[in-house]
Amino acid sequence: MKLNESDIQGQLDRRKPGQSKLTTPRKEQDLVKILSGTEANLTLGTPICLVVQNQDFKPADYANMLDIPRPSHADYTYQKKYGIRSSSGGGRSSARETIGRVAAGAVAEKWLYEKYGIEIIAYVSGIGQIQIPTETEALLKQSMLKRSDVDQNLVRCPDEKTAELMVHEIEAALNDQDSVGGIITCVCRNIPAGIGEPVFDKLEAMLAHAMLSIPATKGFEIGSGFDGTKVKGSQHNDMFTSKTSSSDKKLGTKTNNSGGIQGGISNGEPVIFRVAFKPPATIGKTQETCTFDGEECLLNAKGRHDPCVVPRAVPIVEAMAALVLVDQILIQQSRVNS
Amino acid sequence: MKLNESDIQGQLDRRKPGQSKLTTPRKEQDLVKILSGTEANLTLGTPICLVVQNQDFKPADYANMLDIPRPSHADYTYQKKYGIRSSSGGGRSSARETIGRVAAGAVAEKWLYEKYGIEIIAYVSGIGQIQIPTETEALLKQSMLKRSDVDQNLVRCPDEKTAELMVHEIEAALNDQDSVGGIITCVCRNIPAGIGEPVFDKLEAMLAHAMLSIPATKGFEIGSGFDGTKVKGSQHNDMFTSKTSSSDKKLGTKTNNSGGIQGGISNGEPVIFRVAFKPPATIGKTQETCTFDGEECLLNAKGRHDPCVVPRAVPIVEAMAALVLVDQILIQQSRVNS
Amino acid sequence: MKLNESDIQGQLDRRKPGQSKLTTPRKEQDLVKILSGTEANLTLGTPICLVVQNQDFKPADYANMLDIPRPSHADYTYQKKYGIRSSSGGGRSSARETIGRVAAGAVAEKWLYEKYGIEIIAYVSGIGQIQIPTETEALLKQSMLKRSDVDQNLVRCPDEKTAELMVHEIEAALNDQDSVGGIITCVCRNIPAGIGEPVFDKLEAMLAHAMLSIPATKGFEIGSGFDGTKVKGSQHNDMFTSKTSSSDKKLGTKTNNSGGIQGGISNGEPVIFRVAFKPPATIGKTQETCTFDGEECLLNAKGRHDPCVVPRAVPIVEAMAALVLVDQILIQQSRVNS
Amino acid sequence: MKLNESDIQGQLDRRKPGQSKLTTPRKEQDLVKILSGTEANLTLGTPICLVVQNQDFKPADYANMLDIPRPSHADYTYQKKYGIRSSSGGGRSSARETIGRVAAGAVAEKWLYEKYGIEIIAYVSGIGQIQIPTETEALLKQSMLKRSDVDQNLVRCPDEKTAELMVHEIEAALNDQDSVGGIITCVCRNIPAGIGEPVFDKLEAMLAHAMLSIPATKGFEIGSGFDGTKVKGSQHNDMFTSKTSSSDKKLGTKTNNSGGIQGGISNGEPVIFRVAFKPPATIGKTQETCTFDGEECLLNAKGRHDPCVVPRAVPIVEAMAALVLVDQILIQQSRVNS
Repeated sequence: MKLNESDIQGQLDRRKPGQSKLTTPRKEQDLVKILSGTEANLTLGTPICLVVQNQDFKPADYANMLDIPRPSHADYTYQKKYGIRSSSGGGRSSARETIGRVAAGAVAEKWLYEKYGIEIIAYVSGIGQIQIPTETEALLKQSMLKRSDVDQNLVRCPDEKTAELMVHEIEAALNDQDSVGGIITCVCRNIPAGIGEPVFDKLEAMLAHAMLSIPATKGFEIGSGFDGTKVKGSQHNDMFTSKTSSSDKKLGTKTNNSGGIQGGISNGEPVIFRVAFKPPATIGKTQETCTFDGEECLLNAKGRHDPCVVPRAVPIVEAMAALVLVDQILIQQSRVNS
Repeated sequence: MKLNESDIQGQLDRRKPGQSKLTTPRKEQDLVKILSGTEANLTLGTPICLVVQNQDFKPADYANMLDIPRPSHADYTYQKKYGIRSSSGGGRSSARETIGRVAAGAVAEKWLYEKYGIEIIAYVSGIGQIQIPTETEALLKQSMLKRSDVDQNLVRCPDEKTAELMVHEIEAALNDQDSVGGIITCVCRNIPAGIGEPVFDKLEAMLAHAMLSIPATKGFEIGSGFDGTKVKGSQHNDMFTSKTSSSDKKLGTKTNNSGGIQGGISNGEPVIFRVAFKPPATIGKTQETCTFDGEECLLNAKGRHDPCVVPRAVPIVEAMAALVLVDQILIQQSRVNS
Repeated sequence: MKLNESDIQGQLDRRKPGQSKLTTPRKEQDLVKILSGTEANLTLGTPICLVVQNQDFKPADYANMLDIPRPSHADYTYQKKYGIRSSSGGGRSSARETIGRVAAGAVAEKWLYEKYGIEIIAYVSGIGQIQIPTETEALLKQSMLKRSDVDQNLVRCPDEKTAELMVHEIEAALNDQDSVGGIITCVCRNIPAGIGEPVFDKLEAMLAHAMLSIPATKGFEIGSGFDGTKVKGSQHNDMFTSKTSSSDKKLGTKTNNSGGIQGGISNGEPVIFRVAFKPPATIGKTQETCTFDGEECLLNAKGRHDPCVVPRAVPIVEAMAALVLVDQILIQQSRVNS
Repeated sequence: MKLNESDIQGQLDRRKPGQSKLTTPRKEQDLVKILSGTEANLTLGTPICLVVQNQDFKPADYANMLDIPRPSHADYTYQKKYGIRSSSGGGRSSARETIGRVAAGAVAEKWLYEKYGIEIIAYVSGIGQIQIPTETEALLKQSMLKRSDVDQNLVRCPDEKTAELMVHEIEAALNDQDSVGGIITCVCRNIPAGIGEPVFDKLEAMLAHAMLSIPATKGFEIGSGFDGTKVKGSQHNDMFTSKTSSSDKKLGTKTNNSGGIQGGISNGEPVIFRVAFKPPATIGKTQETCTFDGEECLLNAKGRHDPCVVPRAVPIVEAMAALVLVDQILIQQSRVNS
């Protein structure tokens, strides 16, 4: 496969900090370099090593937090797990680790698109109390939405009216030295039928695993999700219908409550899922908590963090989806060929 | 560890079909037998083989469905994946496979309880439109709920008033030859802090993987879940407070929006999550679908299925939670000891 | 793939005890039954479960060994590892576990032969001091040796003269209440070029892993093996030559010191390796050893064991080779298809 | 654990090219840098990233080999596997990849020594036709051999007389533009009893896998190895004897034909194995081979290679042994603690 840095840089740019007034002022160029695995812009089949160097790093910002575990951060749990923790910036628990996911995901996406025409489009469907209206989102899921549509505003919400409300929601949190969460919807089109394993590694299980491994995530829904628990089977079932084209004899479904997966295996319809992100734990507001020794105290965090990570998490969700799909498709390819 | 069949049979009985008027009339004794791995009721450290024999099996029930893929079932996707499918009862995609999960989970649970005092209690918190009221459920999560409390009614909902409404909801579906979904909440108490891996195998990611591998599941939430996306960080953050006892110096949190996990690692608070189940796909009602060849047709399913699987899924959720916890605890033990 | 019990039983019969005067008198029918994964003699793509029931089992034979760890057996190490051990017959460390390997290997072999024409032929090349002469073995490796050739005598050595000497070697050990080891050579023909992974999972590494997991093995050689360390590079290098046929353009090598693998990857020449088996640890002769408590003692073992396991190990070596090859070929198939 | 670069550099220096007249003149400093996973020279429990930059690299040396697959190299098999290959220096198949193994192994070794006192000492026991005499090697295996003893001569053979003959053997090959192979013996002391898994992942199987993954290896023997096939069981069995010390009640064995492993599990005696290395494939001598197109041709290789890699492979064998041991010990720790 042809591959060079420019195939990867685009998604890193969508993830990087400092993109707008709504995100952390921390500055990073986040330039990727391919160290190995290609020659003359062609992949060699051997492992590909990608490197992104950190640049803007201010450990002093974290100095006053050495004795106080930050609420809803990983300071306390890392200390309990390892008996030690990195003194600055969260170390391994920093969401900065997601840069590797996005870089690898960009390689996976390129392959998925070239081989199968698979398109993975995520967008922000909720910020705090603001949600895309249900009927609008139903249309969005069926549309041929592109990333350029998603990127038309700072919050990556393809419904312009909702986007404006979301910007206000984030600005309000920012002004209040507070933070706000949100929801990302992801639509994966053109996945061939037959992907995913039947029991423990169902396609939705692998996606759920991948999404809940992203920092700050609290929930995952495939297809109808939690709302699907409230309707009767006769409404929820996706009736089959012929979708045979000249080149391919196949069935489709009239509705897609299944989210493109039945029995753990893709059915050829778009795979659609949603991911919940909590509000970032680091806020400017004073917090009443306690020290590692159990002494009550007030915490005033400095650091440079986002009032809302959801718009920047869009390429992370896309990357993790791509990595799951490429793994599952390779597994299925070993079978098809036999 | 001491182990015999009676340690396992209890959970199998909670899962087995034919328990009440609300479930499938299909009858199975589901008696488990330990084939290997123990001697004189003691585990030997080597693999434990458990067997449950099928008894009540009527392939003829499925005969008329050979040409029609059942809507929202796995017939079509198995055919696409493997180029062949089992002609009766769903084969590998039958939820009957969960019997192995429950049997293995019972062994895991016993070990978790004996070594760490870990208790895993799941219950039904929603059936169709009926939900346990929010305040009631908040109290339930903090209570010392037991399985005997959960089993006091047919739907395994520990709030008696809600349970009655749920029974009606299921009966209505049954009378209507339809089906209904629901939600299971699971509370895991006494998990030591430090369990779960920091990046890809976060504890919530492993739980999400396990839960979405259960047939008919559509969603997973840890702690505050999707609702947690709607509040500000200052409300969502779990402030630390000393919970030191005479035997153990440790911190706890005043609230538990994190669901007992921070940075992918348990913090010592109860691990709490919710799982969404869709309404069963097999219904008595006539369905307008098409054959494998794309011909429109009407499907009248016979078979013997549940109008609602959620009460029977309670021990399955508990089993999968136990299996995840035992894996993650063993991984952490290899580290602690070093 | 078509599959029924008769595809598997043949190799089990070659492994089973009681085949001749040279092996243990322990009697087992070792009849295999397919429990799941097929329908109407066709594999369904889902896991295949095979069962072989034990029949002839005399725990009393092992009673006097409860306090004495048998020399060069696993009694002591299991006790140290697990803090407990099975009281009879070795439990999990009994070579009886290899029946599962042979059964699974027979399924793998069938697939390898049908898809690629791969033939896996192992034979006994050494028993105790007796070895097939070097020049004879060089010819054997290049011949189109079949399993029927190998099975023409009790020791499974395709060189008749050597076989006679081997029979005497085993009989002498038997008469002496002693035991004897040996060497198995395995030739795998028609493996396509490109199988095996480049770094940690080189094809020879996977084969070595598999072979050294067989009970009683002490060594593994690929191609020239230890003798290859003694010659110069100019003699050892396998020069390329065109082996293009009408259907396939390819290179071969004039010699095969590489054993069909270069850089961890198959080159299309036969994959040839050798496996060393120690003399069985259970012997009738009195042994001066000590009890678990460190008290010196004499051990007179009863039980029913083989003076030489090597002829019966031939199908085990073939099975493990087949399992490695099928895994590696499936991995490569996922790549080729892409 | 305390860790800095100096803990790792020593083994890299033993592996690096250009150490003496007997090795490739290719020069590399091979300086290691710790990128992540430590702070203030303490490991954090999170992954450790080590980097060694390449410096002396002359792709032009390989230019004339583009059309000719080097005999007994991986050029042909990589082309067949991936449909493409790196144009210079072997790419992924270059033994330069072993630098990562040695660096990681040094970290593993430090932990093994600090926690268990485990010492891993490999040495060269054969070069071409020259072998350490049997009785001398028997004494060496029982001695408290140190790495400083091994490093007293250029060939890393702790028997001085044999070492001199080995130097001549290598010089003769060098003068002849040829190459020569050899054998490395590795002794691992103070491994606690109970390490290794009972069936597929026996300790010797994991070691065999690891050793055969090292470039240019052709064979592996544990304990008595291939010679063990030639003796009777009564001679081969390792009789138990009390080796209880004041601090630890345990058994040992009078002989060690088992190589420290019984039933796949360590017994507390030294784990001893041997690894065969073929003569390097790159030689100065003209070779009669053919091009990728099957045309007969003469190959005159340039490049800069070793006439014998065995002395430099000593730290590689040690590193791979350390990596296997640390994995298996962590697995056992998860069990012991439970």
